[in-house]
Amino acid sequence: MYIANVRGRAVLVTGETATGETTGVDIAGASHGRFGPAPADLYGAWDEFLAWAEVAAAGRGAPEGPVVGFTPADLGPPSPTPSQIFAIGLNYRDHADEAGLALPERPTVFTKFASSLSGPDTTVVLPDGEVDWEVELVVVIGRVTRRARVADAWRAVAGLTVGQDISERRLQLSGPAPQFSLAKSHPGFGPTGPHLVTPDELAEPDDLEIGCSVNGEEVQKARTSRLVFGVDELIAHLSAVATLHPGDLIFTGTPSGVGAARTPARHLAPGDELVSYVQGVGTLRQTFVAAGGRA
Amino acid sequence: MYIANVRGRAVLVTGETATGETTGVDIAGASHGRFGPAPADLYGAWDEFLAWAEVAAAGRGAPEGPVVGFTPADLGPPSPTPSQIFAIGLNYRDHADEAGLALPERPTVFTKFASSLSGPDTTVVLPDGEVDWEVELVVVIGRVTRRARVADAWRAVAGLTVGQDISERRLQLSGPAPQFSLAKSHPGFGPTGPHLVTPDELAEPDDLEIGCSVNGEEVQKARTSRLVFGVDELIAHLSAVATLHPGDLIFTGTPSGVGAARTPARHLAPGDELVSYVQGVGTLRQTFVAAGGRA
Repeated sequence: MYIANVRGRAVLVTGETATGETTGVDIAGASHGRFGPAPADLYGAWDEFLAWAEVAAAGRGAPEGPVVGFTPADLGPPSPTPSQIFAIGLNYRDHADEAGLALPERPTVFTKFASSLSGPDTTVVLPDGEVDWEVELVVVIGRVTRRARVADAWRAVAGLTVGQDISERRLQLSGPAPQFSLAKSHPGFGPTGPHLVTPDELAEPDDLEIGCSVNGEEVQKARTSRLVFGVDELIAHLSAVATLHPGDLIFTGTPSGVGAARTPARHLAPGDELVSYVQGVGTLRQTFVAAGGRA
Repeated sequence: MYIANVRGRAVLVTGETATGETTGVDIAGASHGRFGPAPADLYGAWDEFLAWAEVAAAGRGAPEGPVVGFTPADLGPPSPTPSQIFAIGLNYRDHADEAGLALPERPTVFTKFASSLSGPDTTVVLPDGEVDWEVELVVVIGRVTRRARVADAWRAVAGLTVGQDISERRLQLSGPAPQFSLAKSHPGFGPTGPHLVTPDELAEPDDLEIGCSVNGEEVQKARTSRLVFGVDELIAHLSAVATLHPGDLIFTGTPSGVGAARTPARHLAPGDELVSYVQGVGTLRQTFVAAGGRA
């Protein structure tokens, strides 16, 4: 299943029209108010929702219900109100190498503050500083999870989505300890989407091509099979300490190719278009403008 | 005003009884459902709530409404579902000195993940590792705040409460970058309370005695006037990047006297009782038990 946040309502994506508009079924409408209307309501009852969707779609491919048409601009974050956002640093060997840092023995964990979240198709105002891209696979939690074993950890997952961990490097690298959390939390610095994809839609959910381009030039390209700590290991590590809750997000880390590691360093500038993708999951599109609003 | 979270409902604290039980007025009941019932509902309409409370209490000291009796064990966190929890490291000069770290030029910002929050009177299970205390003044945000100026920053504040930034030092100090966020997020590692105190109740909200004791022995004692970055400067700094939302928390940092900096180092052990206070704000009480449940 592909579940989108269309103007704040959870929608099961069913197809695309010839005009480029996408269509879906409003889940609260189709379930007569049993699930939704907000995406967060869905994650709070994920197992019941999956069971209902299977029965409701049997023989038809999708539940019967109110049809909704939408474009990327109508989409919000697949999980807009997570209680916790976990973000992982240095989780691809080649990115640790380009950053000149040793591979950690354990995942390096920080947060993106929730006010940085946005939908998949946005305009981002560039703050002062040096703004960089970091495409990431993002996990959306579907079940309360405490002390997951690696072998069972995928059971915690509702689905996957694409994220950008946009980062302002000047603040990030200032001070005695790296300022990951705040420097990655300007408004619009956490685009996610375009929808949540349940793992059963993916033949190999642990081996997906991931990448991004700036103005059409490819700048990052890797496979999620190269994660130092895979989705299952991250869930086991995080849930050994914190309790994971439905709707929580895990930004799993970025591969090599960020602007700060280039010679000369490259930063996003007004007018730049950043397109980010994970194979089989979807695509994000961000356009950057100067603080005054000029493109 | 003193506002408590009594079994999930916002209560205006009005007095203590001779038996040690405290009494208050249920805010949803007193306002005929206009405010509450949950504390989060209150922060989302803070200015309207303050205006109502002033009128409703005029001449009486408190609004008329259903009276609720409660003990500390009935209390949850004053803000139980913050969208963001900001935590500040190295924000008292003497604590930076004891940690052997330079004073930062800007606030060092991390998070405590929300699943670590608890009420003021709790039992905390000790995880593996070295568990330490850090008493802190905690700010509860009452208004959506973006780019506050230092001079206006207190306007963002709904009130103050007491917090403990309980920390597991072994994980915190592992790896290439300090693991502040996860190591401070075990269940129960973020007690807050006992209630929110509005700033007008305090003659000098920027100069409060703060401290904690273990088994009756004083281990931290300072004044919040010694914060490197005061409440107003923290709000200005954070809101220059992230948008602050009603109910958000700021753990403002701890003074010297933590266990890790002692010779020999001291860690919390099963049976220990930690009592933490901020003058005029209130007191927290945590008892620690081994993972098996033994005291």
